[in-house]
Amino acid sequence: MLIKEGCSGRRAALSKKFSELDLLIVSRPQHVFYFTGYYSDPTELRGWGLSFVVIDRSGQCTLIVDNWSEGVAAKSYPDSVSVFPWYDFSGPPEDQAVAAIAALSKFLNQKYPSAKNIAIEASHLPSAALSMCGISEASDLGPHIMDMRNIKYPDELVCIRRAIRATENGHSKAREVIRPGLTEMEVYTEVQKAITSVAGQPIIMLGDFAGGIRTEDAGGPPTDRILKEQDLMIFDIFPIIGGYRADFTNTLCAGTPTSEQLDLMNVLKNAMAAGEAQLVPGKTGGEVYSAVKKVFFDAGWEKEFFHHAGHGLGLGHPEAPYLVSNCRQPIVAGQVITLEPGAYRKGFGGARIENDYLITDQGPEKLSNHQIGL
Amino acid sequence: MLIKEGCSGRRAALSKKFSELDLLIVSRPQHVFYFTGYYSDPTELRGWGLSFVVIDRSGQCTLIVDNWSEGVAAKSYPDSVSVFPWYDFSGPPEDQAVAAIAALSKFLNQKYPSAKNIAIEASHLPSAALSMCGISEASDLGPHIMDMRNIKYPDELVCIRRAIRATENGHSKAREVIRPGLTEMEVYTEVQKAITSVAGQPIIMLGDFAGGIRTEDAGGPPTDRILKEQDLMIFDIFPIIGGYRADFTNTLCAGTPTSEQLDLMNVLKNAMAAGEAQLVPGKTGGEVYSAVKKVFFDAGWEKEFFHHAGHGLGLGHPEAPYLVSNCRQPIVAGQVITLEPGAYRKGFGGARIENDYLITDQGPEKLSNHQIGL
Repeated sequence: MLIKEGCSGRRAALSKKFSELDLLIVSRPQHVFYFTGYYSDPTELRGWGLSFVVIDRSGQCTLIVDNWSEGVAAKSYPDSVSVFPWYDFSGPPEDQAVAAIAALSKFLNQKYPSAKNIAIEASHLPSAALSMCGISEASDLGPHIMDMRNIKYPDELVCIRRAIRATENGHSKAREVIRPGLTEMEVYTEVQKAITSVAGQPIIMLGDFAGGIRTEDAGGPPTDRILKEQDLMIFDIFPIIGGYRADFTNTLCAGTPTSEQLDLMNVLKNAMAAGEAQLVPGKTGGEVYSAVKKVFFDAGWEKEFFHHAGHGLGLGHPEAPYLVSNCRQPIVAGQVITLEPGAYRKGFGGARIENDYLITDQGPEKLSNHQIGL
Repeated sequence: MLIKEGCSGRRAALSKKFSELDLLIVSRPQHVFYFTGYYSDPTELRGWGLSFVVIDRSGQCTLIVDNWSEGVAAKSYPDSVSVFPWYDFSGPPEDQAVAAIAALSKFLNQKYPSAKNIAIEASHLPSAALSMCGISEASDLGPHIMDMRNIKYPDELVCIRRAIRATENGHSKAREVIRPGLTEMEVYTEVQKAITSVAGQPIIMLGDFAGGIRTEDAGGPPTDRILKEQDLMIFDIFPIIGGYRADFTNTLCAGTPTSEQLDLMNVLKNAMAAGEAQLVPGKTGGEVYSAVKKVFFDAGWEKEFFHHAGHGLGLGHPEAPYLVSNCRQPIVAGQVITLEPGAYRKGFGGARIENDYLITDQGPEKLSNHQIGL
């Protein structure tokens, strides 16, 4: 979980950037979490409602949540919580979003009637909030928050490491159970169970679980397709666990791999090593990409490596930085980045491997420790 | 899955209500799905992005999605799809929401430059869309769409029945595996796997999985708490499967139930029967509630039944109608409603049971067929 010091540190950084403004209103669920530790978990009923964070010029932070969320909000780290009545089982409630926006309006009118210079998340805050709160003009917090997310705070790293530990168990389970005759879904449900068990809480399970000739498309959700002898299956697993993501990949073979499949896996491992060597502060995303791409070029798989070499991850993914040819931003310490070389050939299939790294001044620290290889 | 006739029928109903307007813009993911069949599945990477539905005065419907969603959008049922470039692996992409709103603005400027009378989902459409699209005033589609959702179309019923079938397998599995010594999480992961297997696709698993004395709180997510002999465990399972929800409950006992526990279960069954008898068109939500409440009153459990007697479900839940004391709206044919009597006593624990019903002119058709009882 995020901790008090992390939340208040992030709020201080945000306030500093927008110090000339009266009020900052945060509404994206991931960012309400980021600044207060209150997580709208989509595996819970309350997780589908709107909530808001309001930070005033002095840095005072209020979390606004509905009455169903009061108990969880009490364990988060704003300076105060304002609970609005939504559904108390006595009469039919309003739509939660409508009730939440009305509550935000009421709160602002009562507590900050003279606030004029306001910033919002313009690409998230619902339109109705502008008119209901009497906001005719507002700055946009969005780009700055996305910039902040680029470098992880220590409590975020704890969350990411925790998600990685659980996901490692999924990769172990995949290796243990995969065999010809199982469907992709049968393997998937074993992996899902293994990750959920170690997570110790419900998760949102995302990933690519494509087997057989479908691997030439680089991924896709699991289907009822039955694995055949020597089918490859791509496990690119990126669950959301307590709000943060892990994201790492292996490709396995149902049965005994062919020499061509083993050759491709060696190309991937070499590409990964080449990328790793570039994962140091100061190198650009484009330079990492080029190092990975060169290995595919030399091995005759250049055309078949058609996606990014990796990307940032955290509250979402993909997120900055992007390891793509046209990225001139330098890598910096504190970023969490994946490397994911993969290659896919029509009629042959494909494979991908991936690790997660923390960028440090001394180079990349590998965070994921699953067994890579067919 | 939703089908073409359902989607076009719902769009026709929406257009009829707003026939004096030039453009209707739908943005809530559930409603983009409702009107086009394009589902932003949160178990897929593309499922976390914004997309839009634009319906013009002639009823022509365009679905606006990013380039990652093109393949899935091609299988949905708008009149046309407009794909905007977001992330093509060549350079760092914009935030998806920012890119989506820019694409909406561009589409409206090019295709409908003279549109004046516009309706939006005011409690969802992001603020930035107003300024970027030059919308200074707009009607709100939200309340009418929520009204529409009250009565299910045939393709929606197919989706709900499918979600119910999968969830029934979860209840069977819970009965099969529960025993003293397991943690709530261990039982949960078995149930999750059983439901996912029958669903045949990744799901969002929501529900109450509270065991032991925690049942006095009526629910909560699973924890590492170990079930003891004669612990009750509430299974209120409401997964999202392909966009639609099932939602039904049973309570099981780890070990041999006590006579007090069996007595409570009988009260619940009687309350359920009393509610069922009222689930006919014309009765109000308040009347159904009262019938259920009376059984608890007569049995001495009145105070301990403190929540609703049930609610509608479909794309979300709880949704209208609400079976609460202060609900005067009559039940109508075509609604899908749950009945969920439950009672919880400090120091004793609690139990809940629940079924899903389709309201017909002949009365309730029970949709859920799990075994109810400790």
